[in-house]
Amino acid sequence: MTDINAVSNTPNSYKWVGTRPVRHDGLEKVNGHARFAADLSLPRMLSGHVLRSPFAHARIISIDTKEAEAMPGVKAVITSADFPEPHRKDYVSLNLMARDKVFYEGQAVAAVAAGTKRQAKAAAEKIVVQYQELPHVLSIDEAMAEDAPLLHENLITKGVEPVPGKASNIPSRTLFERGDLDAGFKEADVVFEQEFTTKVVHQGYIEPHAVVADTSSDDRSVIWCSSQGHFMIRAKTAAMLGWEPSQLKVIPAEIGGGFGGKTTIYLEPLAAKLSQKAKRPVKIVMSRDEVFRATGPTPGTKLRIKLGAKKNGKIVAGKAWLAYENGAYPGIWGMLGAMCLFAPYDIPNFYVEAFEVVVNKPVNIAYRAPSAPMAAFATETVVDQIARELKLDPIELRLINAVEEGSRKPDGPKYGPIGFKETLEAIRNHPNYSIPLGPNQGRGIASGYWFNIGESSSATVHLTEDGTAIVVTGSPDIGGSRASMALMAAEELGIDVKLVQPRVADTDSIGFTDVTEGSRTTFATGMAVVGACRQLIDELRKRAAMMWEVDIDEVEWMDGNALHTVNKHAPLALAEITKSAKKTGGPLTTTHSLEARGAGAAFSTQMCDLEVDPETGAVTILRYTTAQDAGTAIHPGYVEGQFQGGVAQGIGWALNEEYVHNAEGVMENPGFLDYRIPVASDLPMIETIIVEVPNPKHPYGVRGVGEVGIVPPIPAVANAIHDATGLRMRRLPMSPMTILAGLNQKNGSA
Amino acid sequence: MTDINAVSNTPNSYKWVGTRPVRHDGLEKVNGHARFAADLSLPRMLSGHVLRSPFAHARIISIDTKEAEAMPGVKAVITSADFPEPHRKDYVSLNLMARDKVFYEGQAVAAVAAGTKRQAKAAAEKIVVQYQELPHVLSIDEAMAEDAPLLHENLITKGVEPVPGKASNIPSRTLFERGDLDAGFKEADVVFEQEFTTKVVHQGYIEPHAVVADTSSDDRSVIWCSSQGHFMIRAKTAAMLGWEPSQLKVIPAEIGGGFGGKTTIYLEPLAAKLSQKAKRPVKIVMSRDEVFRATGPTPGTKLRIKLGAKKNGKIVAGKAWLAYENGAYPGIWGMLGAMCLFAPYDIPNFYVEAFEVVVNKPVNIAYRAPSAPMAAFATETVVDQIARELKLDPIELRLINAVEEGSRKPDGPKYGPIGFKETLEAIRNHPNYSIPLGPNQGRGIASGYWFNIGESSSATVHLTEDGTAIVVTGSPDIGGSRASMALMAAEELGIDVKLVQPRVADTDSIGFTDVTEGSRTTFATGMAVVGACRQLIDELRKRAAMMWEVDIDEVEWMDGNALHTVNKHAPLALAEITKSAKKTGGPLTTTHSLEARGAGAAFSTQMCDLEVDPETGAVTILRYTTAQDAGTAIHPGYVEGQFQGGVAQGIGWALNEEYVHNAEGVMENPGFLDYRIPVASDLPMIETIIVEVPNPKHPYGVRGVGEVGIVPPIPAVANAIHDATGLRMRRLPMSPMTILAGLNQKNGSA
Repeated sequence: MTDINAVSNTPNSYKWVGTRPVRHDGLEKVNGHARFAADLSLPRMLSGHVLRSPFAHARIISIDTKEAEAMPGVKAVITSADFPEPHRKDYVSLNLMARDKVFYEGQAVAAVAAGTKRQAKAAAEKIVVQYQELPHVLSIDEAMAEDAPLLHENLITKGVEPVPGKASNIPSRTLFERGDLDAGFKEADVVFEQEFTTKVVHQGYIEPHAVVADTSSDDRSVIWCSSQGHFMIRAKTAAMLGWEPSQLKVIPAEIGGGFGGKTTIYLEPLAAKLSQKAKRPVKIVMSRDEVFRATGPTPGTKLRIKLGAKKNGKIVAGKAWLAYENGAYPGIWGMLGAMCLFAPYDIPNFYVEAFEVVVNKPVNIAYRAPSAPMAAFATETVVDQIARELKLDPIELRLINAVEEGSRKPDGPKYGPIGFKETLEAIRNHPNYSIPLGPNQGRGIASGYWFNIGESSSATVHLTEDGTAIVVTGSPDIGGSRASMALMAAEELGIDVKLVQPRVADTDSIGFTDVTEGSRTTFATGMAVVGACRQLIDELRKRAAMMWEVDIDEVEWMDGNALHTVNKHAPLALAEITKSAKKTGGPLTTTHSLEARGAGAAFSTQMCDLEVDPETGAVTILRYTTAQDAGTAIHPGYVEGQFQGGVAQGIGWALNEEYVHNAEGVMENPGFLDYRIPVASDLPMIETIIVEVPNPKHPYGVRGVGEVGIVPPIPAVANAIHDATGLRMRRLPMSPMTILAGLNQKNGSA
Repeated sequence: MTDINAVSNTPNSYKWVGTRPVRHDGLEKVNGHARFAADLSLPRMLSGHVLRSPFAHARIISIDTKEAEAMPGVKAVITSADFPEPHRKDYVSLNLMARDKVFYEGQAVAAVAAGTKRQAKAAAEKIVVQYQELPHVLSIDEAMAEDAPLLHENLITKGVEPVPGKASNIPSRTLFERGDLDAGFKEADVVFEQEFTTKVVHQGYIEPHAVVADTSSDDRSVIWCSSQGHFMIRAKTAAMLGWEPSQLKVIPAEIGGGFGGKTTIYLEPLAAKLSQKAKRPVKIVMSRDEVFRATGPTPGTKLRIKLGAKKNGKIVAGKAWLAYENGAYPGIWGMLGAMCLFAPYDIPNFYVEAFEVVVNKPVNIAYRAPSAPMAAFATETVVDQIARELKLDPIELRLINAVEEGSRKPDGPKYGPIGFKETLEAIRNHPNYSIPLGPNQGRGIASGYWFNIGESSSATVHLTEDGTAIVVTGSPDIGGSRASMALMAAEELGIDVKLVQPRVADTDSIGFTDVTEGSRTTFATGMAVVGACRQLIDELRKRAAMMWEVDIDEVEWMDGNALHTVNKHAPLALAEITKSAKKTGGPLTTTHSLEARGAGAAFSTQMCDLEVDPETGAVTILRYTTAQDAGTAIHPGYVEGQFQGGVAQGIGWALNEEYVHNAEGVMENPGFLDYRIPVASDLPMIETIIVEVPNPKHPYGVRGVGEVGIVPPIPAVANAIHDATGLRMRRLPMSPMTILAGLNQKNGSA
């Protein structure tokens, strides 16, 4: 637990950091050897199935499980009665098994464990649930209406309810303001105010949720599942079971995509409880249909923003009203949107008010830079409009207003060294910026911000007899973090990265580690790895000093060798020290934990070239270029992969994706045929520019790279469509139908 | 890696050490939930089967696997050709898959992986092995004969071969001597010289060897198995595969008994290689028959010893010639016998010469205080004879000669504080010592010594949010070590032992830890746990100081609380500090590794009361009392269990157990029906006396307790039979048939 921040950087002098070795888990991933949660079988294991609500909003009058319990192969049936009453703010537990009411189509009502999945399903159908249907609300407008049907009768959030003291569907409001708004708009030469709406979209991870739980009769359970954080699984599952976290051991399986969607639990407490009742292990695997209906997508929104600028391009005032859906329970999505909306620009006068709104849809959860893409859609579209109006280059306009070190974020804190301007300049200087466009083609520019976080991480490093370093962390590898951990360890220890074995250990075997979210892992867990390696180097120096019988102060560590500074002894390689570790005090192992602070803010600027087919409204992405500040790219290949992944998802969100609910609140497109995410043939190769403005709060200058890439694509596409067609798109998705309708309207032909 | 030895003991003031909580893994063990190696299934897993030699000694002319490979379900067949040529001294690898010759009936010759065990067996039968039979040697006499058939044509061990420069079956000789032997014997008033023989016996663990291996195409393998040390599995398996240890991850299953027999490998490299060839996971589970024929039992021996004593009981000279079988390859068993033979007594003049002898039987491996019980059989029987001759109380005679602190071991080092005399006095003072005996009843006394070892251990301690301490070690729990680790951690941290969760982690997740052998675990791994806890307490004090905003020097740790020594702040409990750990620097985790030194020597004195049925020769154990020095008993219940387990096994060895090989060298009793280990109804409750002479080299005074208990039973039983019948038993087992033959001979009736 030594302090590792007080360390100087010498960028560009690294031997391993910045190289591109094949990821350590690559082969297993491509040859099918990697084991995901659904791959595990245990002797005597049962299959679980969850019975889900057919209604968007209904009271549960009664649940009769008798007939189901008597069905062939059934070993356990559970309902909310099997769990302790959750704390009234424990929305996760409340969401996972309906109690008095169901709040959305797909919410879990009961679950069955039986010998086979087929038996479990058949039995679930025999559970008799008496419902009393209730009126539901599906949109922000419906939910915020004064006479709206209420999801939660007692949801009174002081000061934000439409009628004071009366319950509403608005759990909270966030307000950020600065300067004098009226004076600001007075000063402005141009003012634009517009409204935007976005739809619910899913993270679209390929691996559905799956869990195996094995609960013993002394109320302990071992859980295998894929998630973005097995300590989170432990804590949340324990909360729903009414247990202490230490009663659970969670073993991380490989994860087939998360993107924020696996930062919470769905099946784990159900499987653990079924296993406890059945006294046998239980596996539950969601179908794709269940993933869509019952797990958390990212919110739909309604956003109104107003920006005023002077003729010279300086933005002097901004006002915003944001409403974010939360699904059936309160969330934090509006607040996050408010934090990000104006964050890239130094606006002297602003007023941002953001609302959370509950609706009868699945409870929303994180999706890559959650809430920021919708906010950027609004801001970056209006910024583009100002640039057009003022006949300024869109990058020039952004450079005039861009935040820099010392600028303040909308929520208060000052920025440290950031690379926003550098991303703008990188795009402007890129040859793609001056490629001529043809007819029906357009170019759009947009920028994005994400704050990134630090949080708790732990790492343990073991040196084996053969001179290998086993680097153990508690961070599931969702985007190449094994590679980045290995590279930092190789750099620290001065050994070949092939001699570093990065591993992800279970909740018993590694210190507490927070969820892999907020682009924190290479930053925070990386610092834990560096800390453990530096302790190890001190120990290696001590061992070398013992072997040489000299004072440790005479021993330095360089390039994987102990050096005797007074030159009496030849260098001792790490493997020589580990080989004789038994003689010098035993095994070489260190551990380091920290609560990481100082995650540097992330910025991305992106350029989209596209062509709109005027006959169909279909959009073809011609070229896509993204410049993002990585601080320092530990493994440039995976940094680029993160950039590209964010863009690909953002383009899908911009052009195609949306949850379609019918009037009864039933989702109508719960599958990848009808809910269309981009496939390889839909996109060009996304060109990447890694900007490196090191984050001084990390020993290698890392800032998170995983999320901000998804922030600019929606406005970049929208601005490009405008450039191509003159049509301003303010509703998602920008599907062919919508574009065609817009074109027809604009041309007076519809 | 702080030094934890410079710490004073305050025995008898402990709150948790010395208590008897239910073992943490107890429930899972009794309700069948605990998972042993054979319980694991993986998707697409194959079953393996090993083809074994039918001959005790034969040359392999050829092996044809073609027909086997074509059998239904077969996915891989391996022979020694699939492994790199082992180093000529890598006897483990040489033993595990026969190369040019087979050296014993049951040695592995080939292995098959197929869809089912039945398919694998059927295919193994189709492997055509052409053998050329060779003459074999089964006994020490046969093996040491000058014209003996040789197992290894090139085994020339300088100075010990019967004809200088000529290969023999004697790989090594150990010699310990002191003083002037001839002068010693001249001084003696009584001299006895006798010969003893003992048979090969098995550890008799209930769980057969089992392994699941899953090898990936980049030559990495994950291995699940039960063993006494998964880091040992990793190293030895890697050696046979020609890999580095870091290419393997070994996950410890629960272990169903080992007693030394699981300190080596049998199936692991075979399963890993089959898995590599088949590209699928492979499970191999031995039958009981295979366990007997192909795993390492403890050696048969032939021992000659001569002791001389003065009338006052002082033993003045000792001479011994020891020969220990090693099975088919060289071992260290004679040397260990030589170390232990005279260790309990301060004999001024001695000469001990011990030979290792290879024979055509399975390779011997450790069995609880390996080699010491046979040595004690010889010494303690002759000591008993001297006591009778001199009409001295057998305990009195031993007290006259007993080693104490400062005495020297036969192999040189001095004893630290030891409790040998205390065990003698404990038996003498026990009421059982004066219970009158009836006709045909006898009482036998014997003592035993075991040196105990230290070696490498690692421990990691994580404090969870809820104030639980997860104590992770790399020592498989073969005898209650989870409980002892938890108790030491509870004592250190000052929290309830129920809040300590002891866990055994895999080779990736914990620092290197040596095998659980030599009674080292509570001593050495316990020190690692104590070290990690003490680091944690420093960290807890630091966190409390942060929370109070005071200097850490003002914070003490006591009874699970941080105390502010200047009394301004109320005590802060551990759980309060862990709850706010995120605010004070992050997760609380420490790790500690060490090469433990100073394992205190262990002594046991035992008293056996028995009755001999003069008509059948059957022996009934009436009472059995054992006094053993535990240093400090961390969990007295499991210490007593170790005492009792050692005695039970020793009695089985004394009375019943033996490998029966026919003239062809084929074992004739490879099952628990014919190889009879004691069952509960065979034995009385074994009464235990825990002597506590703390070992100053351990923070709680621990010395190993697991092994020495098996050393005295054979001579204690033999001496009691003599007491009951006048018959001196010098051959094992002392079965009814042997005793009856002895009685008949003695009575002149046979």
